[in-house]
Amino acid sequence: MIITCKKGAPQNEVEKIVKGFEEKGLEVNTILGTNYNVFGIVGDTTVVDEKMVRANPWIEDVTRIAAPYKKVNRLFHPEDSIIDVAGIKVGGKEKVVVIGGPCSVEGKEQICEIAEEVKQAGGCMLRGGAYKPRTSPYAFQGLGTEGILDMVEARKRTGLPIVSEIMSADKIDEFVEYVDLIQVGARNMQNFDLLKALGKINKPILLKRGLSNTIEEWLMSAEYIMSGGNENVILCERGIRTFERYTRNTLDLSVVPIIKKKSHLPIIIDPSHATGDWDLVESMSLAAIAAGADGLIVEVHNNPEKAWSDGAQSLKPEKFKTMIEKGRVIAQVIGRDI
Amino acid sequence: MIITCKKGAPQNEVEKIVKGFEEKGLEVNTILGTNYNVFGIVGDTTVVDEKMVRANPWIEDVTRIAAPYKKVNRLFHPEDSIIDVAGIKVGGKEKVVVIGGPCSVEGKEQICEIAEEVKQAGGCMLRGGAYKPRTSPYAFQGLGTEGILDMVEARKRTGLPIVSEIMSADKIDEFVEYVDLIQVGARNMQNFDLLKALGKINKPILLKRGLSNTIEEWLMSAEYIMSGGNENVILCERGIRTFERYTRNTLDLSVVPIIKKKSHLPIIIDPSHATGDWDLVESMSLAAIAAGADGLIVEVHNNPEKAWSDGAQSLKPEKFKTMIEKGRVIAQVIGRDI
Amino acid sequence: MIITCKKGAPQNEVEKIVKGFEEKGLEVNTILGTNYNVFGIVGDTTVVDEKMVRANPWIEDVTRIAAPYKKVNRLFHPEDSIIDVAGIKVGGKEKVVVIGGPCSVEGKEQICEIAEEVKQAGGCMLRGGAYKPRTSPYAFQGLGTEGILDMVEARKRTGLPIVSEIMSADKIDEFVEYVDLIQVGARNMQNFDLLKALGKINKPILLKRGLSNTIEEWLMSAEYIMSGGNENVILCERGIRTFERYTRNTLDLSVVPIIKKKSHLPIIIDPSHATGDWDLVESMSLAAIAAGADGLIVEVHNNPEKAWSDGAQSLKPEKFKTMIEKGRVIAQVIGRDI
Amino acid sequence: MIITCKKGAPQNEVEKIVKGFEEKGLEVNTILGTNYNVFGIVGDTTVVDEKMVRANPWIEDVTRIAAPYKKVNRLFHPEDSIIDVAGIKVGGKEKVVVIGGPCSVEGKEQICEIAEEVKQAGGCMLRGGAYKPRTSPYAFQGLGTEGILDMVEARKRTGLPIVSEIMSADKIDEFVEYVDLIQVGARNMQNFDLLKALGKINKPILLKRGLSNTIEEWLMSAEYIMSGGNENVILCERGIRTFERYTRNTLDLSVVPIIKKKSHLPIIIDPSHATGDWDLVESMSLAAIAAGADGLIVEVHNNPEKAWSDGAQSLKPEKFKTMIEKGRVIAQVIGRDI
Repeated sequence: MIITCKKGAPQNEVEKIVKGFEEKGLEVNTILGTNYNVFGIVGDTTVVDEKMVRANPWIEDVTRIAAPYKKVNRLFHPEDSIIDVAGIKVGGKEKVVVIGGPCSVEGKEQICEIAEEVKQAGGCMLRGGAYKPRTSPYAFQGLGTEGILDMVEARKRTGLPIVSEIMSADKIDEFVEYVDLIQVGARNMQNFDLLKALGKINKPILLKRGLSNTIEEWLMSAEYIMSGGNENVILCERGIRTFERYTRNTLDLSVVPIIKKKSHLPIIIDPSHATGDWDLVESMSLAAIAAGADGLIVEVHNNPEKAWSDGAQSLKPEKFKTMIEKGRVIAQVIGRDI
Repeated sequence: MIITCKKGAPQNEVEKIVKGFEEKGLEVNTILGTNYNVFGIVGDTTVVDEKMVRANPWIEDVTRIAAPYKKVNRLFHPEDSIIDVAGIKVGGKEKVVVIGGPCSVEGKEQICEIAEEVKQAGGCMLRGGAYKPRTSPYAFQGLGTEGILDMVEARKRTGLPIVSEIMSADKIDEFVEYVDLIQVGARNMQNFDLLKALGKINKPILLKRGLSNTIEEWLMSAEYIMSGGNENVILCERGIRTFERYTRNTLDLSVVPIIKKKSHLPIIIDPSHATGDWDLVESMSLAAIAAGADGLIVEVHNNPEKAWSDGAQSLKPEKFKTMIEKGRVIAQVIGRDI
Repeated sequence: MIITCKKGAPQNEVEKIVKGFEEKGLEVNTILGTNYNVFGIVGDTTVVDEKMVRANPWIEDVTRIAAPYKKVNRLFHPEDSIIDVAGIKVGGKEKVVVIGGPCSVEGKEQICEIAEEVKQAGGCMLRGGAYKPRTSPYAFQGLGTEGILDMVEARKRTGLPIVSEIMSADKIDEFVEYVDLIQVGARNMQNFDLLKALGKINKPILLKRGLSNTIEEWLMSAEYIMSGGNENVILCERGIRTFERYTRNTLDLSVVPIIKKKSHLPIIIDPSHATGDWDLVESMSLAAIAAGADGLIVEVHNNPEKAWSDGAQSLKPEKFKTMIEKGRVIAQVIGRDI
Repeated sequence: MIITCKKGAPQNEVEKIVKGFEEKGLEVNTILGTNYNVFGIVGDTTVVDEKMVRANPWIEDVTRIAAPYKKVNRLFHPEDSIIDVAGIKVGGKEKVVVIGGPCSVEGKEQICEIAEEVKQAGGCMLRGGAYKPRTSPYAFQGLGTEGILDMVEARKRTGLPIVSEIMSADKIDEFVEYVDLIQVGARNMQNFDLLKALGKINKPILLKRGLSNTIEEWLMSAEYIMSGGNENVILCERGIRTFERYTRNTLDLSVVPIIKKKSHLPIIIDPSHATGDWDLVESMSLAAIAAGADGLIVEVHNNPEKAWSDGAQSLKPEKFKTMIEKGRVIAQVIGRDI
């Protein structure tokens, strides 16, 4: 950590600053510059709260050299983490996992039928929303517990592990009982109370990146879960908000090699929410696999025009199947399989 | 609502689409264009879920003409709403309210001392965080209930109503009992479960705009609270995320005249979080008042260098006092007072 | 084009508005809505200046249904355009072109040596900057004409067509004489005087997307060149500016399927400028090919540490070769070749 | 400047890096950290090209401590610069200048009439575009030289100095002869060839901030002009591009106190282009004055509905007059005048 200090800071102020760091067990190196003086802080700087340092009026700037996260950091955990979701391995060099299913669960028959199609197409997990974060209070809010139980039935019939989004900590017991991979949605990426609660269970968590969150903040949210004791975290990129209007969001595929560099956690891609348009899903899925993603989570609906939410971004089962077939060839080219 | 339909859509598809709207009690007008056909939908289109419409592959685009919100819409509530916070009126043409206080409550003596300073400077409410949303799990997370009780003591000593941030629905009872104005932070602006729960109480809510949320989404979050039955909502702009790096966020002051146009709810400005730098707070506060804001919420700390969070953006009490004095003159120029 | 008109607009104002469109040869359809009236304008609305329409105080909003571009629009030119760059075909279904070379030309020997390496690795064109847009006036500004002549020598030795960036219209004669593919950089994407001048020549143009430009604006800039008479335009995505700080810019790969949908022009990807980090270039290149891009433009330098600009994002020739080999396999999977 | 170097860098690599800096006359201080080593570079680091440093694979990161600009830096020029525009002083503590006029010159009578209105309302300069940067090649492109001469006539009749936008260096002679304040538009902020050419004349330049440029880049563009020898630069904020859709751009008023801190150059605000809506112009103008801006540039049109461009954001002369009157009272409150 580098602290830039204004020239002319009184000697006793400088000493107080230095002492503050030393009391935290850190070593302070001083460089006298032309217009600024600089302190180089050596040691475990994750304990330092940048905001507190910046509050000193003699401090001009604070720059972190080491990352603010530990548990998620590849530096301290060089090998890939492989997360086990009810027997499906996510991460590592071998497999690319493909998760499919509707945006919302609309009933037992619908979800069971789609589950069959997902399975036949080559998907290895089933997604489906029972609690839906909707911008409008007048839009469909999900079937709730009933939707979760419909998914349980679909799992029973197909054997596919199930993924669903949790929206508040008071539903954790239900999710722990029934769901195999618990999704934290983009809008809740910094719902820290929820993250803390999820840190105390040992079910795998699928942590989506927030719409305008940096990769560093995303990794810090993973750190919340892991530092609580739950190390089963899978990251999921779902597009970020930009000024562009031809796509719903901007899919940031460069997260794939960056996450691989900075962290040991698996990273999967959601091309459906990112683009908002089923017509772009296949090419973005193939791109994600080529970039090295560990998996895809794709919206599949047997009747998109009748879907209760987000039909425009859902693939029909036959398109989903074609996409998996093409994706498998690309996966094989880079030494993996689907 | 305007629906653009691709040329060449089969007659029966078109009829299905039209029928779908008519069954919702809406009137459909058709325009045959050069490359597209267009349906103009007349009636209460808040009941239409855009995403479902877009899912039809023959639909090219959907454009809302009327706003998706009702309760917050000035069109249906032309006069300004005035929200009563324990006797302090927020909104309307007369007063600009100034709320001051530390980012975090750090103890009873600290908050009581700052409360006295805020009051003497001319502030009319006290802010203070007891539950803190922090990016890092290793940063100070707030004193919790103890912090709330410290604020209650500060209110007792000064008479200032108190404002504090709620982070999850399971704390609502505590907040309803002790807090006068319940803040929903930027990161929870789309924590819909929390919004729904707050719609069921009748305490005033201070709803901050999310870091990358549009004004429309913000108003939809207010609609969540109001449609639940709690019409006591105050909006608060606190800066949006952009590419700029010299400020922490970019304060969007144009929200002031826009909110006044679109909604009847009061709008206040938080220059401290927006800029992240105490040195910019005064000029942005004066600008906000000149723009017509109904209030300010400003961080004040008697010892910013020792603050447990966000000291860099806190004003010392004497600066806060000067700011209020300057702000009062500007308020008077535009026919208001502080 | 849909015009939303406020209820209560005086009859004579409405008539004036309608007449204005009819005088342009457009047909006007009226829909009387609940809170607004709507005009549907049918005909060639590219002649309508939205800003003029919006100026009328009775107009609430203007929505384009048809795209504002014609020449670049796939609707009117369904087959892919294939642009011939000194014998190399860019676009179409068969080949993915790979362009390699240094950010800046640093001298004849340097550029000739890199040209040989690019050729041996499988590259089919040579890039190199002679006129450099640099943020700082104190940074290296390029060798100018000398650099162009050095590239001409490299072409002579290797046969590779050359690509270089033009920064102002007064250099057009030089570029027409020496350069095979004239690049318009991101910062000049809306330098309309330059675009107009390039519309009058018949050399191919490589038009980069601006750092914060929408796809629609980018296509409008291509329309400037094409409407001037020069239909040889290749589009190039090089990353957009977002709040993310781990990459220099955010590579927006969803442009590939979108450009294919909206336009017939070829689209190539620049992963080097987008990421700013050589370490991310290979995975983003493979992703671009998988997404269906028509080509790549990649920075290659034989001695990145000594490069006069942007060395951090340059591949060494051996890495470039490996990238092409991996890319070729992916291209073949999707029915193309490099 | 702080250079972070990976642990494990070979001794000879480290020595080469250090030597490179020392040869530039810089002093290198070394700090051995836990996971990284750090070099603190002391001296005039504006000569260092960050990109070249980053190219070294052993370098992890580069952080500037001192700003990359010199001529525009307040550190080396503590007093405010006051720029003389044909007798009107821009900058300093006394006056807030108000520039008014149409987006485009549409003819001699139009501009002369508006000029009279601007003058009577209290405006002190006349703006008007003769060369127009338009997104569409089919939109009105400006009257060119004829428009400039119409403005000259308006100046003759009213005595108001004139401001107009230059779009390419080949028009510099015309602008030097006729125009008092030469505007560089947002889209040309990084048209470096134009900036260099403007650095060689001695007419004042009004440099608008680019739509997605950082304040630092904007100051670097000013540095281009000043380092060429022309120190008469006035900065102008006109809104940045964000995801928000209710305003055309997001006016960033925090630039006012930041520019005052970082630079000695005057800063004026363009609320018309920023908001795109005449209805928001007055409140944003008052806010700008309260924030400490040195001036405003506002679109005024006597017949906005008939304007050839941007009528929607133009004030009618009577509104402009009211705005100036209100603005004057606010200016007086903060010790200035209009």
